[in-house]
Amino acid sequence: MCLQMEIKSYNPVRIIFGIDCVRNNMDVFKGMGRFPLIVTGRSGAKKSGAFDDVKDVLKKGPHVLYDRIEENPKISTVEDAAMMSKKFNCDYIIAIGGGSALDAAKAIAVLAVSSMNGMDLLSSKIEKALPIIAIPTTSGTGSEVTPYSILTVDQWQTKKSFASDLVFPKYALLDPKYTYSLPDDYTISTAFDAASHLFESYFSLRSTNISMMYSLEGIKAFEKAVKAIDKLNFDEESRYYLMYSSMMGGLAITHTGTTAMHALGYSMTYFHNMPHGFANLYFCRPYFKHMLKHEIQKTLHIVAQMGFTDVGSMCNFFLRNMERPRLDKSMCEKYASLAMLQSSIKATPGELTEADIVSMYKEAGSL
Amino acid sequence: MCLQMEIKSYNPVRIIFGIDCVRNNMDVFKGMGRFPLIVTGRSGAKKSGAFDDVKDVLKKGPHVLYDRIEENPKISTVEDAAMMSKKFNCDYIIAIGGGSALDAAKAIAVLAVSSMNGMDLLSSKIEKALPIIAIPTTSGTGSEVTPYSILTVDQWQTKKSFASDLVFPKYALLDPKYTYSLPDDYTISTAFDAASHLFESYFSLRSTNISMMYSLEGIKAFEKAVKAIDKLNFDEESRYYLMYSSMMGGLAITHTGTTAMHALGYSMTYFHNMPHGFANLYFCRPYFKHMLKHEIQKTLHIVAQMGFTDVGSMCNFFLRNMERPRLDKSMCEKYASLAMLQSSIKATPGELTEADIVSMYKEAGSL
Repeated sequence: MCLQMEIKSYNPVRIIFGIDCVRNNMDVFKGMGRFPLIVTGRSGAKKSGAFDDVKDVLKKGPHVLYDRIEENPKISTVEDAAMMSKKFNCDYIIAIGGGSALDAAKAIAVLAVSSMNGMDLLSSKIEKALPIIAIPTTSGTGSEVTPYSILTVDQWQTKKSFASDLVFPKYALLDPKYTYSLPDDYTISTAFDAASHLFESYFSLRSTNISMMYSLEGIKAFEKAVKAIDKLNFDEESRYYLMYSSMMGGLAITHTGTTAMHALGYSMTYFHNMPHGFANLYFCRPYFKHMLKHEIQKTLHIVAQMGFTDVGSMCNFFLRNMERPRLDKSMCEKYASLAMLQSSIKATPGELTEADIVSMYKEAGSL
Repeated sequence: MCLQMEIKSYNPVRIIFGIDCVRNNMDVFKGMGRFPLIVTGRSGAKKSGAFDDVKDVLKKGPHVLYDRIEENPKISTVEDAAMMSKKFNCDYIIAIGGGSALDAAKAIAVLAVSSMNGMDLLSSKIEKALPIIAIPTTSGTGSEVTPYSILTVDQWQTKKSFASDLVFPKYALLDPKYTYSLPDDYTISTAFDAASHLFESYFSLRSTNISMMYSLEGIKAFEKAVKAIDKLNFDEESRYYLMYSSMMGGLAITHTGTTAMHALGYSMTYFHNMPHGFANLYFCRPYFKHMLKHEIQKTLHIVAQMGFTDVGSMCNFFLRNMERPRLDKSMCEKYASLAMLQSSIKATPGELTEADIVSMYKEAGSL
């Protein structure tokens, strides 16, 4: 522990975690307002059972549904939803879904009570937002406990995030049951997103004892699901641990943000349609190789806590559980220049240059 | 991990921990208001250097000082301070000191903006409170991150607490430097208070994975100060770890409250003037013996994390570092009946009866 380093910690989300937590906490909804905007994707909220639980808890009371959030939500989508909220004068938001619905809800919460347009979110000071109840239906994003929202900006060919203490959800209701119906591939790609949060936060130059406590708590929980991932055999227990580890990942990155894996991953999602979690761990070999050089103790501690004997076998676990596109030289160079625009590069130990990033793309992409 | 148990977690305090954190975070004070009431004991805030730092940061700006908080603050004292706040129309509170000053500040924060009297705090719903900056000058109470305030009620011959989300400090500024001037005995008794929070929360029937994470993080930090306590040789590092472990104790009990050691300890403070931390650990032998019966795994995990080989040697460590009064039979019976009134008894595993509590007093008291 470095005695000179200042530790800051803040997380005002009221977390309620457990089976049936929506039905068991009806009071939460009563205390929020009169007229919620429910923000979801096209199907996940319904398939998971979360939407039915929420409707029951609202006792069929008045609500407006916006169910058109796409994966990797666009600025134009959140503008559209915010107009709907304004039109119906909604006073709080219930976000149900994966990271896309939750991140979109944060943007909508701001736009619904301001005259900003969507692009302003990325540059202007946020003054106000509707309160949010966040109900995740995947175990990956951790967005239910973070102040971050990640949106896709088409004209910049990448994702950009904004952060504000005002968009911390007021409540996070985490019921692992909502992930029981998730297909295996989606369970794994979202789990890998959680893993990348836990690893990257642990390594971050901004990590503190408190953030590392969350990372390690989440990594220990993730380890209990490693076998289920390998065997494609997700039972209630492994889904419980995955949701818990995903929440810990959210708490960890709230303190530190992410590092290079996220910065590199965005192009894999944007140009190759890789799910976000796969896009990050796609870089596990060059990333952990880099970390072995600059943070050997942390690296070996992660490997041990994950239940592996060495970095190589841990990376094999991640890589054999995803499909990987090949990259050519021009792709690597283009994506590297985009990655260099992400501030998370600077939070990575070992001062990464653009040449380093190109090498990472090449190593990950040539298979 | 029990999959059926609901985990709740909430802590909205903005924590800033580190050497010189008051001087390095002047903006915190600017954002709080115009005219603070500074709440302190008679000497600790000044001796520690914290009061000078705060005055400098306020740039000699207007403030009102109430420096008459006694150890184990009385209802009448907080009423007195609240009148002062009302008279000068203070709009926020800066609490500097040990648990007494911090707990008193929470009561004052409520009374300053209501027509309640002090006793109402223990029974009425709290609607409003002035915002608080909490600056601990001891490592024990954890009060800087809790919603609890413990006051001495003379007519009931004991301490009573109230809790409200509204009295969570808005900021906790923890600078281990403020404990450098603490005398050894005070350092140890407050450290033992932190230890009792960590242990009791870990055992509590209300413990969750999240609360246990905080307990274990704090216990691991406490272990790094065990040698310093035994050798009465407190250096910067051990004081850093003690403050960190004390904060973790506060985070842990925010989730769970305390258990039997606290319930039994109150009479030792009230009738025998034992410092609060000693009063709790005075019961370590019967408490851990009870826990060995009901929570053997947790007990042995604590012993191991504390760096001891068995419960006996860990208890010896605590007991050899305090002075212990003898108790006679009538004392044991009287104190046991008072302890039974504390709700923390019910949070203790193993369903303690009044006879059990009498035995615990007898075992601890006959030496």
